[in-house]
Amino acid sequence: MTSADVRATPSASSRAPRLVMKFGGTSVGDLERIEQAARKVAQEVERGYQVAVIVSAMAGETNRLVGYVRDVNRLYDAREYDTVVAAGEQVTSGLMALTLQKLGVPARSWQGWQIPLRTSAAHGAARIEDIDTAALDQKFDEGLHAVIAGFQGIGPDNRIATLGRGGSDTSAVAIAAALKAERCDIYTDVDGVYTTDPRLVSEARKIHQIAFEEMLELASLGAKVLQTRSVELAMRYQVPLQVLSTFGEAVGSDMAGTLVCDESELTEDKVEGKAVSGVAFSRNEAKITLLEVADVPGVAARVFGPLAEQNINVDMIVQNISESGHTDMTFTVSTDDYERALSIIEAAKETIQFQSLRSDSDVAKLSIVGIGMRSHAGTAQKMFQVLANEGINIEVISTSEIKISVLVKRKYMELGVQALHKAFDLDAASA
Amino acid sequence: MTSADVRATPSASSRAPRLVMKFGGTSVGDLERIEQAARKVAQEVERGYQVAVIVSAMAGETNRLVGYVRDVNRLYDAREYDTVVAAGEQVTSGLMALTLQKLGVPARSWQGWQIPLRTSAAHGAARIEDIDTAALDQKFDEGLHAVIAGFQGIGPDNRIATLGRGGSDTSAVAIAAALKAERCDIYTDVDGVYTTDPRLVSEARKIHQIAFEEMLELASLGAKVLQTRSVELAMRYQVPLQVLSTFGEAVGSDMAGTLVCDESELTEDKVEGKAVSGVAFSRNEAKITLLEVADVPGVAARVFGPLAEQNINVDMIVQNISESGHTDMTFTVSTDDYERALSIIEAAKETIQFQSLRSDSDVAKLSIVGIGMRSHAGTAQKMFQVLANEGINIEVISTSEIKISVLVKRKYMELGVQALHKAFDLDAASA
Repeated sequence: MTSADVRATPSASSRAPRLVMKFGGTSVGDLERIEQAARKVAQEVERGYQVAVIVSAMAGETNRLVGYVRDVNRLYDAREYDTVVAAGEQVTSGLMALTLQKLGVPARSWQGWQIPLRTSAAHGAARIEDIDTAALDQKFDEGLHAVIAGFQGIGPDNRIATLGRGGSDTSAVAIAAALKAERCDIYTDVDGVYTTDPRLVSEARKIHQIAFEEMLELASLGAKVLQTRSVELAMRYQVPLQVLSTFGEAVGSDMAGTLVCDESELTEDKVEGKAVSGVAFSRNEAKITLLEVADVPGVAARVFGPLAEQNINVDMIVQNISESGHTDMTFTVSTDDYERALSIIEAAKETIQFQSLRSDSDVAKLSIVGIGMRSHAGTAQKMFQVLANEGINIEVISTSEIKISVLVKRKYMELGVQALHKAFDLDAASA
Repeated sequence: MTSADVRATPSASSRAPRLVMKFGGTSVGDLERIEQAARKVAQEVERGYQVAVIVSAMAGETNRLVGYVRDVNRLYDAREYDTVVAAGEQVTSGLMALTLQKLGVPARSWQGWQIPLRTSAAHGAARIEDIDTAALDQKFDEGLHAVIAGFQGIGPDNRIATLGRGGSDTSAVAIAAALKAERCDIYTDVDGVYTTDPRLVSEARKIHQIAFEEMLELASLGAKVLQTRSVELAMRYQVPLQVLSTFGEAVGSDMAGTLVCDESELTEDKVEGKAVSGVAFSRNEAKITLLEVADVPGVAARVFGPLAEQNINVDMIVQNISESGHTDMTFTVSTDDYERALSIIEAAKETIQFQSLRSDSDVAKLSIVGIGMRSHAGTAQKMFQVLANEGINIEVISTSEIKISVLVKRKYMELGVQALHKAFDLDAASA
């Protein structure tokens, strides 16, 4: 682009680039930490960004407020829950704006209803429906950086609606998309996304770049660093996300964390690289097997219909080859839903028509994830071999284009994760 | 009124009578107390009222939030201060609504911006400018009682504005006026307004009824039970106010507290009754005397102009008879402003032209208040005699139609209050 091009650019694109910086609860846990976070914002402002800061409630505050609500009335009205709980982010937004002002950064706070950030009517777990950026744009043009209370918006009933736990990440991504921000930096208490949980595998390494699809699989499979919903949103709106530590020296523009972006934007040579980007695991699994189910059309609906009606999510499903008109059907649910699932299935025994039921909540799920799998043949075979070499029996298998999950006895979980991490060249030494 | 009249009444007047119930910080200090307050609301709902409950922040919460703001940035932006501090009332409003729901009372919370309750732009000390009751009316018609966050509204800039400390009383009275409520009950930690402070005079009695004008004088003179501003507002809009205890058994409709109302509404026989309704006092006084001030036109402006410019409130003013073109001028200020007032006067010595200055911060103000004074001649004379009998010298006198204040040495304050309380037949025994 020549300088003549730049001059010809309409005013909207000659705006300063925008950046969204999101700070979670521990990152704004007290006034000192708020100041530490504000200094990072000031650094990015100095680099020329118009910054929208998204803040959570101070650590512990949401729990305190939720505790009040539950203590008052266990059958709480979600609209009142939202009114009470949103106060946490409101306080942080004002304090962050004041701290930025003290550091010489012109800033003001915004509540969801002031923007407005409109949500669905589902109080307590609302979805963002529309973000009107006109008022924000105007204040940016006046030189005011924005501090936005995360986790909240305004419902169609003109009342405060919250997005559900972890919703501040979702707020941040949605606002980044609406503001056409260059990037959305999620500051947290870890310095990025790891190849697996470092508490389980000391050789785990930080991933510098990862594709949206891979991050989505890892988040769904139990990596807690980013909410599944926020990754989905980032992928849909193509907002590059970066996960990085509030407590380190670097800021987002130093690219010191894990960048989650479109596959086409990855600068590391993924194709020639590894088949697998990360190993995920979940202890929170239970297996249910129905023996000798009548193998007739509609049987799956008869099994899973009653579970879906009760909002029980079924994860892996395996149906064996039919013998003499009967089949065995195995599926997994989260341990939280395990007891309820069992009693629902028992109650529907007549309708489903099965001989007997076996169940096991002493299982775990191991998964390998990587877009490299597409071009690396034999990844599944290698995974099964690695586990076999360790004497680990595979009970259920489920795959997608960029993920393979297996169910194993829980006692083998740690061993399995370590073996897979090493076998797929993820250990720090082999990086 | 016949039953035919009742049927002919238009729908607006056939509405249930309305009641405003305001609970202060100690009355909603924890969940147990919120429930205690909610039970009082439920009782009034049972008596047929549409109730608007005005709540303060839970005791201690406002101080905590104000502390955060001051710790962050002493030169705080009042708009951010308001955003942070208003969160306290927001939390209580949600919790109160939930508690009412638990007790079977249909209710919802309202923030200032939802009503909307519009204020001036003076963030941190905003004035209420307009209350649109359309949305409240509609919800009342749907059977929903209202829980309104006190102390806050929305400014012309679409941002939360608070009314300043104690503003919840003002909210309550303004909302009572807008809703045309039958009465505004202020629930607090004392059971009414007393003839004087019971901590000073054990014979002090609770006043059952008092006129707005008297209450206004008592509030201005230091009775802390009601904010001056809220009494002014109640008087202007003729909203009967009742002060009563949250911790007693009775509710407002039992008329167990102190009713503050228009003189014409007083049912107790005030005319034949006592000249004096209450004795007020203030330790918070300091006296400044300018000796040999040039007695020329404009001298008062030269003295009080510089004080007014610095927002120093001058209370009592006495100017002696002029001798040979000079006069002595005495005035009082609050002890908080005393040092500043002295240095302002010293700095303006050239302009004012006075010989010397004497000051004394070891004084107190005693006042008697009563609409009965108008019809009882010789009340001032009696007050002076009572004090003289106790050997108490009067330094400055200031009067209004229904009030006489005198300045005395501080050491005589208690003795003076007790003597006046007894002499004007206010002791419990003589009631």
